This record gives sequence, C-alpha cells and structure tokens, in this order.
Amino acid sequence: MTQTVRSHAIPLQQVKLDDPFWSRYIVLIRDVVIPYQYEALHDRIAGVEPSHSVANFRIAAGLEEGEFHGFVFQDSDVAKWLEAAAYSLTIAYDRKLDEQVDAMIDLVAAAQQPDGYLNTYFTIKEPDKRWTNLTDCHELYCAGHMIEAAVAHFRATGKRKLLGVACRFADYIDTVFGPEDGQIHGYDGHQEIELALIKLYEVTKEQRYLRLSQYFLDERGREPAFFVMEWERRGKSSFYASPSRRPDIAYHQSHLPVREQRVGVGHSVRAVYMYTAMADMAARTQDEALLEACRHLWNNTVHKQMYITGGIGSTHHGEAFTTDYDLPNDTVYAETCASIGLIFFAQRMLQLSPRSEYADVMERALYNNVLGSMAQDGQHFFYVNPLEVWPTACHHNPGKHHVKPVRQGWFACACCPPNVARLLTSLGEYVYTMSHDTLYTHLYIGGEAEVTLDGIPVKLVQSSEMPWHGRVSLTLQPEQAVKWTVAVRIPGWAQGQAAVQVNGQSCHIEDSIKDGYAYITRTWAAGDTLELEFPMEIQQVRANPRIRANAGKSAIQRGPLVYCLEGVDHNALLSSISLATDPILQARFDPKLVSGAVVIEGQGFREKLEEWDDEALYRATTNEYAPVSIKAIPYYLWGNRGENEMMVWIRAKY
Amino acid sequence: MTQTVRSHAIPLQQVKLDDPFWSRYIVLIRDVVIPYQYEALHDRIAGVEPSHSVANFRIAAGLEEGEFHGFVFQDSDVAKWLEAAAYSLTIAYDRKLDEQVDAMIDLVAAAQQPDGYLNTYFTIKEPDKRWTNLTDCHELYCAGHMIEAAVAHFRATGKRKLLGVACRFADYIDTVFGPEDGQIHGYDGHQEIELALIKLYEVTKEQRYLRLSQYFLDERGREPAFFVMEWERRGKSSFYASPSRRPDIAYHQSHLPVREQRVGVGHSVRAVYMYTAMADMAARTQDEALLEACRHLWNNTVHKQMYITGGIGSTHHGEAFTTDYDLPNDTVYAETCASIGLIFFAQRMLQLSPRSEYADVMERALYNNVLGSMAQDGQHFFYVNPLEVWPTACHHNPGKHHVKPVRQGWFACACCPPNVARLLTSLGEYVYTMSHDTLYTHLYIGGEAEVTLDGIPVKLVQSSEMPWHGRVSLTLQPEQAVKWTVAVRIPGWAQGQAAVQVNGQSCHIEDSIKDGYAYITRTWAAGDTLELEFPMEIQQVRANPRIRANAGKSAIQRGPLVYCLEGVDHNALLSSISLATDPILQARFDPKLVSGAVVIEGQGFREKLEEWDDEALYRATTNEYAPVSIKAIPYYLWGNRGENEMMVWIRAKY
Repeated sequence: MTQTVRSHAIPLQQVKLDDPFWSRYIVLIRDVVIPYQYEALHDRIAGVEPSHSVANFRIAAGLEEGEFHGFVFQDSDVAKWLEAAAYSLTIAYDRKLDEQVDAMIDLVAAAQQPDGYLNTYFTIKEPDKRWTNLTDCHELYCAGHMIEAAVAHFRATGKRKLLGVACRFADYIDTVFGPEDGQIHGYDGHQEIELALIKLYEVTKEQRYLRLSQYFLDERGREPAFFVMEWERRGKSSFYASPSRRPDIAYHQSHLPVREQRVGVGHSVRAVYMYTAMADMAARTQDEALLEACRHLWNNTVHKQMYITGGIGSTHHGEAFTTDYDLPNDTVYAETCASIGLIFFAQRMLQLSPRSEYADVMERALYNNVLGSMAQDGQHFFYVNPLEVWPTACHHNPGKHHVKPVRQGWFACACCPPNVARLLTSLGEYVYTMSHDTLYTHLYIGGEAEVTLDGIPVKLVQSSEMPWHGRVSLTLQPEQAVKWTVAVRIPGWAQGQAAVQVNGQSCHIEDSIKDGYAYITRTWAAGDTLELEFPMEIQQVRANPRIRANAGKSAIQRGPLVYCLEGVDHNALLSSISLATDPILQARFDPKLVSGAVVIEGQGFREKLEEWDDEALYRATTNEYAPVSIKAIPYYLWGNRGENEMMVWIRAKY
Repeated sequence: MTQTVRSHAIPLQQVKLDDPFWSRYIVLIRDVVIPYQYEALHDRIAGVEPSHSVANFRIAAGLEEGEFHGFVFQDSDVAKWLEAAAYSLTIAYDRKLDEQVDAMIDLVAAAQQPDGYLNTYFTIKEPDKRWTNLTDCHELYCAGHMIEAAVAHFRATGKRKLLGVACRFADYIDTVFGPEDGQIHGYDGHQEIELALIKLYEVTKEQRYLRLSQYFLDERGREPAFFVMEWERRGKSSFYASPSRRPDIAYHQSHLPVREQRVGVGHSVRAVYMYTAMADMAARTQDEALLEACRHLWNNTVHKQMYITGGIGSTHHGEAFTTDYDLPNDTVYAETCASIGLIFFAQRMLQLSPRSEYADVMERALYNNVLGSMAQDGQHFFYVNPLEVWPTACHHNPGKHHVKPVRQGWFACACCPPNVARLLTSLGEYVYTMSHDTLYTHLYIGGEAEVTLDGIPVKLVQSSEMPWHGRVSLTLQPEQAVKWTVAVRIPGWAQGQAAVQVNGQSCHIEDSIKDGYAYITRTWAAGDTLELEFPMEIQQVRANPRIRANAGKSAIQRGPLVYCLEGVDHNALLSSISLATDPILQARFDPKLVSGAVVIEGQGFREKLEEWDDEALYRATTNEYAPVSIKAIPYYLWGNRGENEMMVWIRAKY
C-alpha cells in the first residue's frame, strides 16, 4: 500500500498564470468564450439554437411568463458559466463581467423557492414531481454545479449571495436525503453534487455538507438498487426512453458499493466525477477502503481504458466506457467533459499521493484532448475527440455520425464548452500543491504564485517554454531565507533525461527522485533559481499490443504533445502512409501553422495508389511503396484548416 | 458498350448435383434445415422464440382464433420455406415433405381472401388498412415471396394449386397498382415482387405480370416521392419509428428513377433484389438504359463496396451501404441475405453477358459469406458476417453488439436461414447457362445435367475437386455426335494458369479466351472429356489502398476460399500477428478441422506481449517480434469451435 502524503492546491487567488502558450487560451476564454456563452445563455446569438437557460430562470422567478425549454439539466449551463466567470474575475477583475455575474446571481436567487429548492425544470413544469426521478432528471447534478459556482464566486469576490443560495439549497437537500425515515435513501443519476458538497464544506467548514456527500457516496450500490425501486415507484416510466427500460445501474456506477468498484464502467463523465469525489472524501476521512478503490479505478481507467490523448470513453452509446483495451480510434467517443473529469480525478489523486503519473495524465489530457476540443477562435468545439477521421465515412456511415470532422458551434447540449471554460480559467489551481514540508510543481506553466514556506511569504516565479521546449525556470523570492523542499515533477516523457540546476550549478537529482518528483531541499534565498531542462525528443510511441486498434502502429509524441497527420499536409491517403521503425524526423517551429507550432517532418512511405485503378478492390499482389514527405502537427491543432482526414496512429514500416 | 449475349439457366430439374463438397450442405438443408424450419414455423422448437407464422395463416383462414404475432413480413418465412421445400422435392422426391408442402399450400390458399389478397397481418389485424403503408409494411414483398414459392412448386411438382393462388393474387395486385385513375401509383418499400413477377411471367407467359413488374420498376424514383406522399396521407405516421420520420427514399432505392441509378445505396438486400429484377427486365425488353444502369450498379457494388468475402452493406444502421471503400471489418454488417441477393444479381448479369467476373463474384459470395453464415450443424446462423471479431468487444462495445461471435439459433427475424435454404437447394440453377450456340460452365460443382445441343440430347457429367483442388472434368454423353461450343470459366484466381485438355490432349486456350471464358468448339462424341486444371496457389491478396480498414494488411486466399485466423489456433492475440510479404505458406488437408478442410500453415511474427506488463498502455519503444506458427482456416468454417477471435485481414510485415 502506498503511503499517502497529503498536499493541497494553492488557491487560484495566489497563482497568476502568465505563460506564452497558455495565456493565449485563458485570454480567449475571458474575451471570447465567456462573453459568447453569456450571449448564448440569453438567446442572443443569431443562427444558433436558443439555449433558453436564462429565460428558464426568469420564468421560474416569476419575472416572465412562458414554458421551460431545453434539457432537464439546462440550469447547469448557467452554473458552469457563473463558475468560469468567477474564476475569470479571480484572474483579472473586470467590472462589466462582475456586474453580469451579479445580475445572473440575482436571477438565480430569485428563482430559488422558499424552501431552498432551485431547479427551473421542476419549478416551471412539474412542481409536484421533485425528487421522483433522480435516475434521469439531474436535480442534484444541477445543484452540484450551482454549489461549485457559489464556492468559486465566494472565493473570487468574497460576496456571499450565491453562497447563501447554495447553502440554503444544500440545507434543504440535507433534509430530503438521508438515512432517516421519511428521507429519500437515494442519490443522483449523474454524480456531481458529491464533489461540490466537499467544496462547500471546505469554504463553510459545515460538517453536514461533508456528511451529506459521504451519504450519497455510501448509499450508491446498495441493494435493492435505488434507481430500480424508484423506477418501479414511477410505474416503470422513464424521462427519456419510450418504451421505458429498467435503469442500467452500471451506467450510473451504482452497480456496486463505491468501495468495491474496481473497473471504469458506464457513462464516463459520471464515473470520473464520482471518482473525484471519492478521492476528495478519502483525503478528508482517511478512509483506506475508499482510497484503495480510487487507486484501482485510476489504474483501470488510465492503464486500460485511456486513449493516448487522455480521452476516455470508447463508445458514443451512452458516452461510456466499454472494456479494457477497447480503444477504437475512429468510432471513439473520448468526450471533452470526460477528459476534464479525468483531470479533476488526477488532481485529487495527486493531492493524496505525489506521484508524477497523476500529473502526467493531467498534462496529457490537458494538452491534447481538452485543448484540442476548442477551435482557435474559441467559438467552435468538439464533444467527441477522435484519433482518426475520414470525413466521408463520418458523413455516410451512421456508426460514425457522432464523430464530427470539424468543430461545431455552441451545441444544444452545451456541456463541454462551459466545462473547458471553467477548467482553463482555474488552471492555476492545477500547477502546484503544498504539503506540510514540500512545495510541489506539477505542471510547467509560467506565472507567479504567492506561498508561505515555514511562515515566510515567498513569491515563486515560473517561466516555461513548454510545450515547444523543455526549459523551465523557477525563481523563489522569499522575504527572508527559508529552508524548504521544492519537488519538481520529471515528466514521464523526459524520464532519465532531465537536468536540474540550482543557481547555475548542476544537481545530481537521481538519488532524490521519488515517484517521479525530484526533491530539492535547501535554504532558499531571494532570487534562487531552479532551472529544469527536459529534453524534448521526438518519440515514436507504441501501444500495448492488447489495444487491437493500434497493432503495428506508432504515434508521434514530443514533450506533452501527441502529434497527428492531417490530409491537407499530405499528397496521399493518410491510411496509405507508414513510418520506418526508426525514421529520421525533425522538429521545426512553423509560425504559419494556425497560431504557430512545432511541427515534425520527415520521410515516410506511401502505398502507390497509382498502381491501382479505382475499379479493382482486391488483387494478389505486393503493394509498391514510394517515399512521401510527412508533416505531423500537434493533435490539439487538428481540424483548424477545414474538413480533411486526420490520423494519430501511423503504421510502422518495420 | 458491351454486347449482350443472352443465355439462360438450365432448369433445376435437369441438373442433379452430386459433389463431394456441396452435397453435404444440400443434404444438410434437406435433412436438417427444412425439417427444423418446418417445426419452427409451427412453434414446435423448445427454447426458441415462437415464429407464429403458421398460426397467423390459420387465424387468417378462420381455422383458429387469435391475434397476429411476429413481424409484419412474417408470412415470407412460410413462402421461403415453401420455395426451399419445392427445390428440395425437385432434387429428391420425399413423400413426407411433399405432404407437408401440400398441407402448407392448403393453409395458404385457405388464408387467401375472395378478391385474391393474401397477407395475414392485414387480414387479421388491419383489414381496412391494406396498401396504406407500402413503405414499411412489406405487402408486395410477401406477395413476391409467395409468387416465387408458387413458381418453384409448380416447376418441382407440376401441381397448380399454389400457382393459382399466386396468379389470383398477382391479378388482384394488377388491378390495385398501375397508371390508371383509381389505381395506386406506387411500389413496395422492400423490392422483391419485381423479380417474382418476372418468374411468374416465365411460367405462365402472361404478359400482364411482366408489365406489372416493369410498372413497379418504372414508377420508382418519380417525383414527388410516393413514400413521402403516402406518409403525408397517413398523417405522417409510420409503422416502426416513433416519432415518425419522413421516409428515407434512398434507403428504399427510390431516390432516382432506376435507369438513373449508378451507386449502391440504402438497404443492401432491397438494393440487390431490385438490381436482379432490373437485369431480368433488361434481358426481356432489350432496354439498353436499364442494362446500362445495371452495369453501373454492378460496378459500384462489386468494385467499390464489396468485402473480399462477397459481403455487402457496411453498416448495421439500416443494414445498408455506406460509401465507396468504406469496408470496416469489425463493425461490418455484410448480411447473409445481401450476399444471396448479390448472387441473384450476378446470375442475371451472367445471363445477359457471359463475363467471368459475374461468376467470380457469385463464387466468392457463395463459398465465403453465404456458406460461412451456416454452422456445420445446419441449425445456427449468422446474419452479420464480420471479417474481424474480438468477442469481448462484441459483448461490451454497443457499436459491435450486432456482431455475434458465434452463430445463433433460429432468429425472431428469420430472413437469412430460409434464404440460405432456398439458395442451396436451387444451386443447380447457378452452375450452367445455355445460349443459342454455347453451353457455359460457371461453377465447378459435380453432378449431371441433361441438355439439348442442336436438337441432340446430351448428358453432361461434371466432377470437381473444388474447393480443395482445381481439377475438374466435364464429360459429354450426346446421344449422337454433335458440334457445339462449350465455354468454361477461368476463375479470376487462376487467371493465366489454367490448363485445359480434351480427351487427354492439351488445348491452347489462350486465343480462345473471351471475357474470362475459354470457348471450345468441336464435334463432341459420347465420352469426350474436358479436363480443367486450375492451379490453386496460396495467394496473399492486397486491398485497394482506398479501403482504409485494410491498409498494410493482406488476406490469404486459395482458390475460391478466403482464409482467416482463429484465436483457438494461435498462442497470441490475432492483432499482434503479422505475415512476411512473401511468407512460406503451405496447404495441408486437415481432416480433423470441423468437417475437414485444407488449412494453410506457415511462420509469421508476433509482437512480444511478454515485453508489456498489463499496466502500461503506451511506451516510447520499438516492439520486439518473435516467430509464431500461423494456421489459417477457410473463412466459412470460422466460429465452429466456440467463441474466439477471428481475423481475415492480417498485417503484412514488409
């Protein structure tokens, strides 16, 4: 059993990111995504299906007449926007945004019912049906998002209005759910409130919220299954399906008590949100069985069911996990929100045990799946993040209709874009953690952090050339010299090749590395600088042969970035291209590639299509190969140059 | 433009197959499949979902009380059984079967309505809704199958009862559909009656049946679309979908007039049934535009959308074609019935123009997709015929749920098994055709045929060692010497390597080959023997690089048989196996492999799985390879040794 070493995130207020790579995206979220989403929530974007989210709140508040429209979980769009806006205010105060947020909070508060209940669908449409369909109706999920928004807003501004709304709602929920007679012994169909209540506990220190979260976790998986009993109580009706089917309890991860779960199953976003809460809870209760379950679930998800891009969930049927090593590249789901949830889970596991694997996965999902989900204009998004796209098949083969070859505008179901917004605006919270004696650096993103080491205020300045180069410097500016340990993560892709200098002097870090972190203990004086060098070699990555889809193929990776080929750069069908086992590949910064990026170029082989007329499908022949120039671009940039083929896993000629 | 050279099939009565390979299957159909299906139609198979087919007829006939059960096209199961039974009686008279058939025909006749209408669904359930939903309800499809059964039964026995039923029904349909005011200007959602009416015309010489078939073909694709108008007349309701969607006219191949169709689209069985009727019609009307459409549809289907096994239809969504070169091996559909329909189409094209390509495709579909659909016990069938199966993914990835890793019992929707039965019992009709001056041999299946050449009765005796060896002999026994041309097909897999001897003397056939047939003209005396030798080399077949799923892979073929690997024969994940480009492979007859078969053995390579623990998914490494023994078995035998992996397309190490 691995010993836990608790560390905690450094609050966003204390971390100001200023990074040549990431600031662009954070500014894009602030200047484009958040305003665009604000307009979208108000149904003011021409040509886009109305969200009706704000209208629902206005109707529920009695401010206008009308019907509820949208998904049953439409409220969560407002909550996620509020959360992202709160983080954005934390990063950089903006009066207009502050006013928009306050107005939105006033509206939310006005829609809250006298007993604390807050959900526009049920308030408007089925006021007497509250809590009758937890399986399908996302009431506690929406509650969770509003609680997260409230915590973020309180932390950002110190204002208590939304926090008050959240507490009243949580207090009310606490009366409705619980072990007592007359209470509902149940939990939500979409996990979210569990992690939110822990955040609410953190800012309020109200034990009841922690206990309620624990209740929801502990109740899950009890027999007989709550969702089935509930369904029977409803006369076997369900919200979506007609005819109604018996609830699939594994889809909702309620097939087993959480402490007995070992394998990632069901809807992948629901799963990782729950695992996040489980890790959060284990950290607070020292519940070893829960922690053990987290480790198993991590291992299964990450070591058996994760794409190289950090995507999880192999099938669009239920947006779900399928089975170990089943990672098809073209019929994939790999939803953006699921990778974001995986980052949450990784962040929590990291706080439990500083093992670089957790940060490696966080980095992998962030730089590839999540970043790739957003177009460079901040207005188009992927929900599904494929690793291989042939647009013609996406259009004509219904088994690939869910795979879009170009990013789409704001979707009717707007879960992913606001999730990207709230992740990137709070990115500062993922960079460092602090234990009782160590400051950990997990991600290499430039900026300043204010920390206190042994009672001494210290400014930590990071500058990073990632992801293009592996040079990072960390300068400490303590108000007075202080002895402390700084642990720096050696990324998995730089294992054995990292070099560390302190004030220009090389450190022999080999003996000080533990679980992927180099621990440097010294008395730090103002201006002391740690310089890290992680050589960025071009790596040809092979997949475990158990992943059938990648047999005989390799992926190109450099630093944290996974690369891909796009049709527009190649005068050949991508599938006809292969790489030599040990190809000569070169990295070059291409300022003209979209927003500028390091591309990887070299020579490959292509099957000679000209040997085939298009009137023969099969021939007893050996195909002829010709050389072809290969240009691989970072995966996150694919699909920014029009609709065309894309491929991550490339055949290896060996 | 290719000149047509009309030839016609030799009727089943004149062709008695007796073949070491095929007789086993034909006997299996006679002794197992037809009796089993008879019991199934009567709901007397324990543990199998009741068919209710016979019960429906009894209820419609007023012989018992009850409700209709089953699919709206359930009647076609009875019709297909009758057709197969009729062919079986033609092959070998069996008194018990004859009596069963007569009893079934009495029942069918009793269910026919006074006006000639015959459909148990509408008669029992919605008597006033006849012909209101041609799109969905298969009324003319069921009619077509009953007509085919009637023609087969009349030819087999000379009995006219079922033929009378069919004619009365066709006469009635001819009053309902047509160009006159008050008639329905429409056609069926599932093509079938078109080809059936041409058969009915052939036995009755009643021109009205030919004209009605032509009407159905000509009407298709007219604007505004009949199915849409019909749907609007029904208040936009449909039989299946709820909510009802506007009919997809391409799914039913009514998106264009048939003469303008160039590409295989929509439901693949509907498509090839229609193409069959189009070719039949073109042969009878010399309609050049129709023939030209047939050639285009053939070329598109066979040269751009066909699996190497002769399967067509890449997606289970609508059991349909997708797009050119989209032939995924694992999410495939390749329905058994679609390959049977492709064989029908090939047979008709062959009668229009003797080009070996048509017979090559017939042979490919027959020996691989169709034969493989049936278990060696004759009681288990595949509907979906995949080229790559990983059972775990079939069970856990909903995108592969339609792919069954083992053959299933009689299905609720029992289209494929009776279709296999009627094809194999009528296989004699696919072996030869006769033109005004030439006897063509298309398939190499042993037996005797009675033909008349220039007025002289001739017995033709074929013996064949196919598919294990390429030796075939054809002995002619004319009652007196006769000058005639015998054309023998040189299979595509033997191109340039075939040898022909007449009475032991080598013929130089090179100059006499046209469109894949060697034409041998001479005066044939009793006992004259043509000996054909088609060397069966083990071929490594490559796919057109436009087929992305097969990039870098090859398939093993020997003679007409496509081979595959099965997990049970390999001590490795199949996906980890690769072949050398020019591997040393050897053929050996393995009497212990199921019913005995030539297997292909050799040395391949496997990625060393032992280099990977199961806790890593991705590594910057070059995989190590180890030798592995490979054993490829004929595709048609896969899945007869329990559930395990299977793979046709094997990576080529090059």
